[in-house]
Amino acid sequence: CESTSSHGTSWTVVSPITFTYTVTQTHDLLNPNNDTLLMGHIRDPERLEAFRSNTKPIKRFVVMDETVYNLYGSQVTDYLEARNVSYRILPLPTTEENKSMDTVLKILEELHRFGIARRTEPVIAIGGGVCLDIVGLAASLYRRRTPYIRVPTTLLSYIDASVGAKTGVNFADCKNKLGTYIAPVAAFLDRAFIQSLPRRHISNGLAEMLKMALMKHKGLFELLETKGRFLLDSKFQSTTGLRGKADPASVSTRLAIETMLEELAPNLWEDDLDRLVDFGHLISPELEMKVLPCLLHGEAVNIDMAYMVYVSCERGLLTEVEKLRIINCMLRLELPVWHQDFTFALLQKALSDRLQHSGGLVRMPLPTGLGRAIFNDTCDNTLYSAYEKWCDELSSGSKE
Amino acid sequence: CESTSSHGTSWTVVSPITFTYTVTQTHDLLNPNNDTLLMGHIRDPERLEAFRSNTKPIKRFVVMDETVYNLYGSQVTDYLEARNVSYRILPLPTTEENKSMDTVLKILEELHRFGIARRTEPVIAIGGGVCLDIVGLAASLYRRRTPYIRVPTTLLSYIDASVGAKTGVNFADCKNKLGTYIAPVAAFLDRAFIQSLPRRHISNGLAEMLKMALMKHKGLFELLETKGRFLLDSKFQSTTGLRGKADPASVSTRLAIETMLEELAPNLWEDDLDRLVDFGHLISPELEMKVLPCLLHGEAVNIDMAYMVYVSCERGLLTEVEKLRIINCMLRLELPVWHQDFTFALLQKALSDRLQHSGGLVRMPLPTGLGRAIFNDTCDNTLYSAYEKWCDELSSGSKE
Ligand SMILES: NC(=O)c1ccc[n+]([C@@H]2O[C@H](COP(=O)([O-])OP(=O)(O)OC[C@H]3O[C@@H](n4cnc5c(N)ncnc54)[C@H](O)[C@@H]3O)[C@@H](O)[C@H]2O)c1
Ligand SMILES: NC(=O)c1ccc[n+]([C@@H]2O[C@H](COP(=O)([O-])OP(=O)(O)OC[C@H]3O[C@@H](n4cnc5c(N)ncnc54)[C@H](O)[C@@H]3O)[C@@H](O)[C@H]2O)c1
Ligand SMILES: [Zn+2]
Ligand SMILES: [Zn+2]
Repeated sequence: CESTSSHGTSWTVVSPITFTYTVTQTHDLLNPNNDTLLMGHIRDPERLEAFRSNTKPIKRFVVMDETVYNLYGSQVTDYLEARNVSYRILPLPTTEENKSMDTVLKILEELHRFGIARRTEPVIAIGGGVCLDIVGLAASLYRRRTPYIRVPTTLLSYIDASVGAKTGVNFADCKNKLGTYIAPVAAFLDRAFIQSLPRRHISNGLAEMLKMALMKHKGLFELLETKGRFLLDSKFQSTTGLRGKADPASVSTRLAIETMLEELAPNLWEDDLDRLVDFGHLISPELEMKVLPCLLHGEAVNIDMAYMVYVSCERGLLTEVEKLRIINCMLRLELPVWHQDFTFALLQKALSDRLQHSGGLVRMPLPTGLGRAIFNDTCDNTLYSAYEKWCDELSSGSKE
Repeated sequence: CESTSSHGTSWTVVSPITFTYTVTQTHDLLNPNNDTLLMGHIRDPERLEAFRSNTKPIKRFVVMDETVYNLYGSQVTDYLEARNVSYRILPLPTTEENKSMDTVLKILEELHRFGIARRTEPVIAIGGGVCLDIVGLAASLYRRRTPYIRVPTTLLSYIDASVGAKTGVNFADCKNKLGTYIAPVAAFLDRAFIQSLPRRHISNGLAEMLKMALMKHKGLFELLETKGRFLLDSKFQSTTGLRGKADPASVSTRLAIETMLEELAPNLWEDDLDRLVDFGHLISPELEMKVLPCLLHGEAVNIDMAYMVYVSCERGLLTEVEKLRIINCMLRLELPVWHQDFTFALLQKALSDRLQHSGGLVRMPLPTGLGRAIFNDTCDNTLYSAYEKWCDELSSGSKE
């Protein structure tokens, strides 16, 4: 499409790209009889048929979080051996401190040495959100885009990092400053991994689940209120007799994923700035990086959310009773609701950064009632009085 | 969209993204009266109006190729000063040897230190293809995507690197092995830069122009046959009296860009493997990296094309006369048509790599007649006899 203006002759190029990916809740993912890990990303029935009848060995490059490798490495090895896969497993200490371009480059070197067919042999990442984010970035860059598969092993990555398209690493002490929006070809979700997760990390994941509940789903909030502690105790494993509809582990993860997908799918590249999923993510990145490694991602998010609940209450969007219900629910999920390093100065810095990057308006998501939210600016006075009240009421209970 | 299969419960996410960008041929880009560099990327008339009436100073981060900075740096500085822009110019030795993730990270550090509003203050790259590719990658990664503008200063980048979405750096001795497909918000093309370009680099750019001519446009081929030497001598500067329609510099660049856009726009992410723009790019990447820094990109491309012309001829797709016309045209453009390091083994390695990555078929673009092409596999025998003939006829004339 051509035009002429004061700037000269211009061609305007409009080029649509479509991302298609699947998120699959499965079980027994590492059982050699289950072919999901190797074939679950193939959507076209004909291609799947061709793939199944192909006799030459499949090739897969697998990156695993080191801790996860120690727990499940032999199962993964047995699985790949049993299915006659030509493979390389790369275990890496994918911690928040190592979430860097260096680690991405290390993966890329190994990947390049191993060699894969760029279009048909997806890279597989098995681990928590850090691992999935780093491997996703490496795959996005290799040959300008290599398909990859996410296998989350933490609750947080199960309901959050696996569902969207974001990849990333920290840079210059800033959280996820470098990255891409490249969706995986598939995410395979198996709750069995969560069994071995430390209790604190279950709480951590519950924070992101609570986020979706507060923003979009009263039913999910009520489930967390009543069954949250049980989920924490049972580590999201289905208890005998309860499967499917009635099982809180199934119901809650399912609702979390569905609400998340509703928000992410139409806005995969975050062009729309009004994002419910940003609740709890306005001030927490600063806080998380500042106190690293003291707070986990979901913990920092929860502290941010707790403060925002006070802002909502101050503005009359939430009643005192609703506020208390939310804070109590957080406490029962064993999540921190206040932190000494969440100062008013930190808050102002985070908001002014956001102001700069969004081009004028903060428009933060704020809960209004339970399971609903609005986007709004808030004046400094209100932010400050909410801050004071928040400190008054919650600082003493804090473990810090 | 939800479904249940043997793999479990799946959600299939289909998420469309649209890239919109402009390619603008302009002149006097660095004249302070021309606001293209600062505002030419804003397409929406209302936003443009708001931008023009905005009083606070504009902020821009500019990366320039070092050689280009020595030639045009003061003009760029004067321009930005005259328009009261708050700026930082980062000159870098963006050579093929420095086309690496290290250079990308160096840019990112400076960019981060300078600080920009991610959505409204595009990064500007001014230089040849290497500079544009590196800066494009840095911008793609920063905050998961920061808009950037391409200002090509070589003929090659004017007609090729500026038009598409590809960014990249070399990795593990492989050409453009890491990168993204993120289009710039705009490319501003001013032929004036080409004045100062060494003659060899004009030939280099002419190779990519010839590529489009051979694949798609007989008229452009004939123009290069008759006026190619003149374009080389006059460095694509319009000669007085000739502007617009009759001027070979305008006509040829315009045709090159239009044919290129026709091919790139519908296939921005190269999902379709049948790409005419890949002509000359099957074996040349191996050759280029092998002899680095002896051959320029377009020179390696031309050697690859010359060989493919022999393949086409061997297969009866081109007549002997057409073959000669093409080779003669190349020679008149002062482009190499043979190279001793383009061995048959190199050729086989490059094709087998491609075979692996495309999943079974090479389907290489081959000229059939002048200005048309087909995609086809070619058996080893034909490849070899074409190779022998090519060496027989062209090796003696080579300067090597
Ligand atoms: N891409 C996204 O959309 C997205 C969304 C949310 C969070 N994130 C990112 O995810 C990261 C947080 O993810 P996380 O909470 O999973 O952290 P994590 O990856 O650091 O994992 C937490 C800890 O649990 C261990 N672990 C993982 N699985 C285990 C298992 N099955 N059993 C025992 N231990 C196990 C890990 O070794 C690690 O020590 C953050 O960096 C955040 O930015 C990304
Ligand atoms: N992204 C894409 O779609 C795409 C397309 C084609 C090529 N490329 C890449 O572009 C690169 C080749 O680009 P190139 O040929 O522009 O090389 P280049 O960027 O190395 O520039 C060539 C030389 O000319 C100098 N120079 C640049 N502008 C000048 C000017 N106006 N006057 C005098 N000297 C000048 C540079 O300093 C350099 O020494 C390759 O790395 C290739 O992979 C990318
Ligand atoms: Zn989060
Ligand atoms: Zn090229």
